[in-house]
Amino acid sequence: MTAPLRIAIAGLGTVGIGLIRILQTHPQMIAARAGRPVEIVAVSARSKGKDRGLDLSAYAWEDDPVALARRDDIDLFVEVIGGHEGPAKEATEAAIAAGHHVVTANKALLAHHGNEIALAAEETGVALRFEAAVAGGIPVIKALTEGLAGNEIARVLGVMNGTCNYILTRMEDAGLTYEEAFSEADGLGYLEADPTLDVGGIDAGHKLALLAAIAYGTRVDFDAVELEGIGSVTIEDIRQAADMGYKIKLLGVAQMTGRGLEQRMSPCLVPDTSPLGQLEGGTNMVVIEGDAVGQIVLRGAGAGAGPTASAVIGDIIDIARGLRLPAFGQPAASLRRARAARAAVPAPYYLRMALADKPGALAKIAACLGEAGISIDRMRQYGHVDQSAPVLIVTHKTTRSALDEAIDAFSGTGVLVGTPVAIRIENV
Amino acid sequence: MTAPLRIAIAGLGTVGIGLIRILQTHPQMIAARAGRPVEIVAVSARSKGKDRGLDLSAYAWEDDPVALARRDDIDLFVEVIGGHEGPAKEATEAAIAAGHHVVTANKALLAHHGNEIALAAEETGVALRFEAAVAGGIPVIKALTEGLAGNEIARVLGVMNGTCNYILTRMEDAGLTYEEAFSEADGLGYLEADPTLDVGGIDAGHKLALLAAIAYGTRVDFDAVELEGIGSVTIEDIRQAADMGYKIKLLGVAQMTGRGLEQRMSPCLVPDTSPLGQLEGGTNMVVIEGDAVGQIVLRGAGAGAGPTASAVIGDIIDIARGLRLPAFGQPAASLRRARAARAAVPAPYYLRMALADKPGALAKIAACLGEAGISIDRMRQYGHVDQSAPVLIVTHKTTRSALDEAIDAFSGTGVLVGTPVAIRIENV
Repeated sequence: MTAPLRIAIAGLGTVGIGLIRILQTHPQMIAARAGRPVEIVAVSARSKGKDRGLDLSAYAWEDDPVALARRDDIDLFVEVIGGHEGPAKEATEAAIAAGHHVVTANKALLAHHGNEIALAAEETGVALRFEAAVAGGIPVIKALTEGLAGNEIARVLGVMNGTCNYILTRMEDAGLTYEEAFSEADGLGYLEADPTLDVGGIDAGHKLALLAAIAYGTRVDFDAVELEGIGSVTIEDIRQAADMGYKIKLLGVAQMTGRGLEQRMSPCLVPDTSPLGQLEGGTNMVVIEGDAVGQIVLRGAGAGAGPTASAVIGDIIDIARGLRLPAFGQPAASLRRARAARAAVPAPYYLRMALADKPGALAKIAACLGEAGISIDRMRQYGHVDQSAPVLIVTHKTTRSALDEAIDAFSGTGVLVGTPVAIRIENV
Repeated sequence: MTAPLRIAIAGLGTVGIGLIRILQTHPQMIAARAGRPVEIVAVSARSKGKDRGLDLSAYAWEDDPVALARRDDIDLFVEVIGGHEGPAKEATEAAIAAGHHVVTANKALLAHHGNEIALAAEETGVALRFEAAVAGGIPVIKALTEGLAGNEIARVLGVMNGTCNYILTRMEDAGLTYEEAFSEADGLGYLEADPTLDVGGIDAGHKLALLAAIAYGTRVDFDAVELEGIGSVTIEDIRQAADMGYKIKLLGVAQMTGRGLEQRMSPCLVPDTSPLGQLEGGTNMVVIEGDAVGQIVLRGAGAGAGPTASAVIGDIIDIARGLRLPAFGQPAASLRRARAARAAVPAPYYLRMALADKPGALAKIAACLGEAGISIDRMRQYGHVDQSAPVLIVTHKTTRSALDEAIDAFSGTGVLVGTPVAIRIENV
C-alpha cells in the first residue's frame, strides 16, 4: 500500500458531510479500491461551531477555503461550496495554482468557467474531475468520456433536474396546478434558494453544457443553451399530452447539426412508453446515442447527499489510482469553438390554442400552417366553452422558425383567443 | 502526440470486424480521445481468404492466434475469438506472458479462468480489460469498478441475455409458445451455435459471475451460480403474471448475504412498472444498488458488432491513456473466496398448480403452506377444466427451502394434478 491520498474538503453542506460520512464508514473498502488510503486532512466551512452530526475533530479547520486550497499538506482539493463566482471559484483556482488535484460538484462554476479552469489544470498538470456536477450519482461523465469514447455521439439528452421532474410528475399524477406542485416541492425542501435555477432550467442547462462539451469536443458554451423553464406548463397540456400518449418533461438535448451545435433545455413531449416518458419523481436520466453503441440509457438519483458524494468519491478514487484524463475528455486547448445552432433540428410539435366561435375558424388556422409548409399529423377540436373552442394539433416534422412564422400568422386571422402553446415533441 | 498504441486483433467475426470498422472510420477522433493514435498492426482468424467486406491489406496476417499474441511489434492484444478453452485461452495467456496488454470480450474464458488470468496479468504488469464481456455496449464494468467505487454494493441484478429477453417478450406480446418464440429467434440468427448457452442461462451466468466478483471483491466463482434457463417458462405463466402486474424475465442477481455470496440466474417475476419489467426485446439492463448512490440503472444493446466493439474500444482507449486498474477493481491476489449461499435471501413466490376436483383440495394445499411457515398474499382459483382446477398463489416472503418443503408436502395430499410451478418474485 502506497502513501495515502491527502484531501481537503471545502464546504460542509449536504454533499460535504455525505462525503465525510462515506470516507469514515468505508475506509478499508475505499483503500482497497483506490490502491491507497484516502485521508481527510483539513476542512472548511462558514461556521466552525455548527453541529453537523459527525466527528470532525481529526481534521484541521480553515475558515477560508482559499487558505484550505493552498495548504501544502494536501494532494487533492474537494470543492463542494457551490456558486459560480466567489469562494468556490477562488478556492478552485488557488488549489490548481498550488498544484493540487481538484474534484468539484459545481456545475455552475464549470458551465461558466470550465474552459479556463480545465486549461489551468492541464497547464499545472493536475486532474480536474466533476462527475457529481451532472446527474448526481449517475456515472455519466465517465460513461461519455471513457466507456463510450469510441463513439461519434449523435445526440445526448436527458432529464437532469429532479425537482422539475417531481413537479411535472405531481401535476400529472395528482392533477395539481403548476403553482400547487411548486409549493409542494418547496415545502419538501427540493428547491434551490433561488428556485429559478431549478424551474427556469438553468441548473439543468449547466449540466447540458458540460455534457455537450464532452460529447462533441467543443468548448463549454452555456450562453448558447436555449433555455425555457417549466413555469408555463399547464395541467391542460399535461392532460392532453397524456391523452395522446405523451409525457411532458424538462428535456435537455445536445446535438451536432450541419449548422452547428444545438443545445436546448425546454419542456418537450416524449412518448409515454419510452424510458424518458416512464421516468417519475425526482430521478434523473441521461440518454446517450452513439454511432457504434446505439442508445445507452443511464438512470439514477440526480441529487442528495449519498448519490452526489458517491460521484465525488468515484473521482477521488480515480485520482488516487493515478488516472489523469483531460477534464473534458481531450485537452482543453484542443476543444473547438462550436457555432451555436438554434432550433436547427426539425421535429413534430404539439400546438394548443383556443379559437373563436366563428365559421371557418379552423380552416384559417390550417391555412396558416399550410402556408408555412407545415403539415398536420393529428387534430382535435373540442366543444365550445365561453365562445371559444379548444383545438389541439400535432404537426409533422417542421422547423421552429416555420412554426413561429405560422403562429405569427395565426394572430392575423382574427379567430385566435389568447396565446397558442407550442411544445416540441422529441423523438426518443 | 506520443507513440501510437499498436494492437493485434485475434478473431475476425462480428466483433473483430466491427472493431476494425470503427478504428478505420474514426482514427482522428480516437487519437484525440486516447491521447495517441491507435494502430492495428496484425490480425488473425481461421480463414485468410474470406471476404470480410473490409480492406485488411495494411495489417500483417497470422494464421495462429498464439503467434499473433507473441509478436514483439504490438502493445495490446485483442481477443475476440470466443470459447473458454483452446485458442482464446492459449493466445490470451501467451499475450500476457509476452508483456502485452489484453482486451477481451470473452465472458466464458473469464468466468472459468478469470482469477488465474487476472493474476498473471498483474504479475506481468499488464492491463486486462473486459468491458465487452458483460452487457455488450453498456459500460457497466466501468460503472461498477470506477464510477461507483465508493459504494458498498447491496445487490447487482439484471437482464443480461438479449436472446432470452427477446423470446420472453415475443411470448408475451404475440402469445407464442416457448417453442415458437425459440424458432423465431433461431431464424433471426439470435441464438449461439449451442443454444443452451443462451436459453439455459449459461451465457448470462458467466456475466453475472464477473459482476459479482467486481461488486464484492471476491474470486470469480461461476460454479456457484445457481442456473435455471427459460425452457420451462410457459405462456400460461406469462399471462398469469401479466394479469397480476408482473413480467417474467431471465434475471441474474448477485447479493452478499450473512450466509455468503448468492448468485442466481433464473426466471423471475418483476413488477411490470419497474425498469426491468419494461425492458422489451433484445436489450440488456443492469441495476446496481449501492449504499450511497441508491439504485443506478444502465440500459443498452447487449450484443451486436457495434455495441460490443464500442466496449472493446473504450478499453483500448483507457489503456492508451495509461489507465492501469486491476481487472476486478482490486488486486487479484486480494480477492476473497466467498462462501456460496444458495437461495439465502427470502422472497415472495408465484405458485401455479392444478388441483383435483375434490372437496377440501385447496384447504389441503393451504395447510401445507401454513405448516412450512409460508403465508399467502394472494390466491386465485379458476373454474374446473378436465377434472382439475388451476390455482395461483402469491406467497409472502419465504425461503426457497421452506417453499420446497411445502411443495414436497403438496404431493402427499392426493389433490395435486401434475407438477406445480414456482417462480421467485424479485423486488426491484
